[in-house]
Amino acid sequence: MTGIGTTEWVMARCDDLTRHSARPDALERVYLSPEHSAANTAVRAWMQDAGLDTETDAAGNIWGRRAADGTPQRPATPGEPALVLGSHLDTVPDAGRYDGMLGVVLAIAVAHRLRDTVLPFALEVVGFSDEEGTRFGKALLGSCAASGQWDPAWWDQADAAGVTLREAFLRFGLAPDRVGDAARNPADLVGYLEAHIEQGPVLEAEGLPLGYVTTIAGARRFVLTVTGEARHAGGTPFARRRDALVAAAHLVTRIEELARATDSLATVGDLRVEPGAVNVIPGRAELTLDLRGRTDAGRDALWEQIAAAGREIAAARGVTFEHTETHRAPSTTCAPQLIDAVASGIAEATATTSEPLGLWSPAGHDGMAMGAVTDVGMLFLRCRDGISHHPDEHVDAADVGVALEAYTAAVLALAKEIG
Amino acid sequence: MTGIGTTEWVMARCDDLTRHSARPDALERVYLSPEHSAANTAVRAWMQDAGLDTETDAAGNIWGRRAADGTPQRPATPGEPALVLGSHLDTVPDAGRYDGMLGVVLAIAVAHRLRDTVLPFALEVVGFSDEEGTRFGKALLGSCAASGQWDPAWWDQADAAGVTLREAFLRFGLAPDRVGDAARNPADLVGYLEAHIEQGPVLEAEGLPLGYVTTIAGARRFVLTVTGEARHAGGTPFARRRDALVAAAHLVTRIEELARATDSLATVGDLRVEPGAVNVIPGRAELTLDLRGRTDAGRDALWEQIAAAGREIAAARGVTFEHTETHRAPSTTCAPQLIDAVASGIAEATATTSEPLGLWSPAGHDGMAMGAVTDVGMLFLRCRDGISHHPDEHVDAADVGVALEAYTAAVLALAKEIG
Repeated sequence: MTGIGTTEWVMARCDDLTRHSARPDALERVYLSPEHSAANTAVRAWMQDAGLDTETDAAGNIWGRRAADGTPQRPATPGEPALVLGSHLDTVPDAGRYDGMLGVVLAIAVAHRLRDTVLPFALEVVGFSDEEGTRFGKALLGSCAASGQWDPAWWDQADAAGVTLREAFLRFGLAPDRVGDAARNPADLVGYLEAHIEQGPVLEAEGLPLGYVTTIAGARRFVLTVTGEARHAGGTPFARRRDALVAAAHLVTRIEELARATDSLATVGDLRVEPGAVNVIPGRAELTLDLRGRTDAGRDALWEQIAAAGREIAAARGVTFEHTETHRAPSTTCAPQLIDAVASGIAEATATTSEPLGLWSPAGHDGMAMGAVTDVGMLFLRCRDGISHHPDEHVDAADVGVALEAYTAAVLALAKEIG
Repeated sequence: MTGIGTTEWVMARCDDLTRHSARPDALERVYLSPEHSAANTAVRAWMQDAGLDTETDAAGNIWGRRAADGTPQRPATPGEPALVLGSHLDTVPDAGRYDGMLGVVLAIAVAHRLRDTVLPFALEVVGFSDEEGTRFGKALLGSCAASGQWDPAWWDQADAAGVTLREAFLRFGLAPDRVGDAARNPADLVGYLEAHIEQGPVLEAEGLPLGYVTTIAGARRFVLTVTGEARHAGGTPFARRRDALVAAAHLVTRIEELARATDSLATVGDLRVEPGAVNVIPGRAELTLDLRGRTDAGRDALWEQIAAAGREIAAARGVTFEHTETHRAPSTTCAPQLIDAVASGIAEATATTSEPLGLWSPAGHDGMAMGAVTDVGMLFLRCRDGISHHPDEHVDAADVGVALEAYTAAVLALAKEIG
């Protein structure tokens, strides 16, 4: 394989990975599927080409490693702490080809570029097996295993076909009772550094190819319920209505207004009406709310405003407002040392005099799990129109070239800082 | 059977009819069901007790008739035009016991009270077999057959169990190819006069037991579709969103605002979101709209305002707005002669000096179909809290007593006017 470590090689490998899909007409590769196995096999070969020894861990993550002196070394060898580069290899349904995969391939290319460079730490590359959570509903399964945060309650979660996570492990050739072996020891880690497309339009709007991440936002999710009274659409004048949908609709517009006035994001992704008949005034409306903020405090303050608006609208309309929190994750703050290394790598690669741009990530990433065992840093690449989780996902080869330079320079900057 | 024609008798017969239900715990009696047959049998006996000859027509409607001179006479006997009194015997699921049935039982009681009175027309009582449309989705099947408006396209409509209307006819013992026999000849009809609970709160609010109907509103129904763009809830700032749900929610609140400023009614009974995932900005929202107005012109003017608001909101938010009309019925104007007769009956029964109250009916009634073959008039009874289509449906016996007087007086007033 010629050209390993070049921009062309990186782009071609992202193309290659699209072959490993559950669907002929679209990209879909979920955890513990035959496609997952095939992608691991391809990635293992590229890792070996880059001078890394390889191993699939007890949760299906694929790892490669070289020692500080550059020689191939079995992943997770204790005694010589490693800097881990990587991202994930699974996809959402009808996915683009860069979300996750680009970060894994870039990490391999960086490892290849540094194969003859002695570093003050071992270097590992990981392709996480599940970040999206598409198959079992729970996200970050691969990095949760690697960070020792596996919850046995997950074993009985089933996919759409009724196959449990436990059964899927067995079919993939993994031993459920060995999953703990995938957990990395914090003492053996220097940090986790990931490159990823931005999945947002900020860098494109700023005219910048790259940015460093300051925090990865943790989402809070709620189910909001508005209960009014189902009545005959013909026989009930407005003064007598307690229409759950009109109240919910009012709340949806208020949520947008309130969130727009902050730097947090709020999304109502679903709304269901009961009884849902054309000639019956809705008696009940249930909506989902997804909140993300640059800081947990900002996000939580927005929630308090939304809850107050819900209570106010309900009181004014004679309906009731209830809420249930269904998910809550704290934000992950990137480590100053890794932020500095990434920023310095960007500055070197882009050769600009202006300060590199720091962004917060509203989307979740494997670093949220890895933060439990080591320092985390992230490099974001500009993507077209902010589109992700869609076949139109696109990143320019020129930006990938700059990212390759910056990612390599970041590792060297960290080496200089540590060494 | 003692007491026939009294208030107590009317209330007891409404109670009796609840026995003929598809469910032990609730009232549900749909077209061409065993319960329909049982209810017809009970009503036939009461009609005969009231001095009427009886017949079930080719669409399952039950009829009773006496000649102008008071002698029992076969229903639909030509040559002596008849005033038809009645309502419907079918129900919605989990129904109350007065919607429809009270009007049939009151009509029988009126016929009994007038059994020894010579009238200038024959008198018929009808229990229509299907007004609600619960089983086959199409409402007013019974009165459409009686008014000669049967559409052969309906034969293949199926119920929830897949039984077609044609098959249900055969199972009930009716011949589909004879349904035209149920059609009444306009020359044989003097008018159709129905008593019904208001299904609204106006009479209660006015402190009146009765009112006469001026028009029966015809609804227009639409499916409204808002199309935006489904995107990642994390990665897309507000400035880049084309959120179909927020636009639809804005439209729902505007629809209420616009309708409140008129005397028409607008209801969004259902709203569905796609893809409907907690972390995806909605790309599509589909909502139903039900419009009813005192006049067709008022209702149509409101629709124009709503459509303009939809286009305006869509333009402001970068989404598209489309609409499809799924149903449209003209309003039915009650005949001045029958309005006068009912108003005069109310005045006599309530012995007040104030003018009887005229109301428009936002709900549909059999008169909408019967209006195609004869004059229509309606008497509304106060019901508690406007509740209908619900087990809590309630009418006071005292009001039924006044209605019985007024209904009888209305027939006599019409007889005087005609005779």
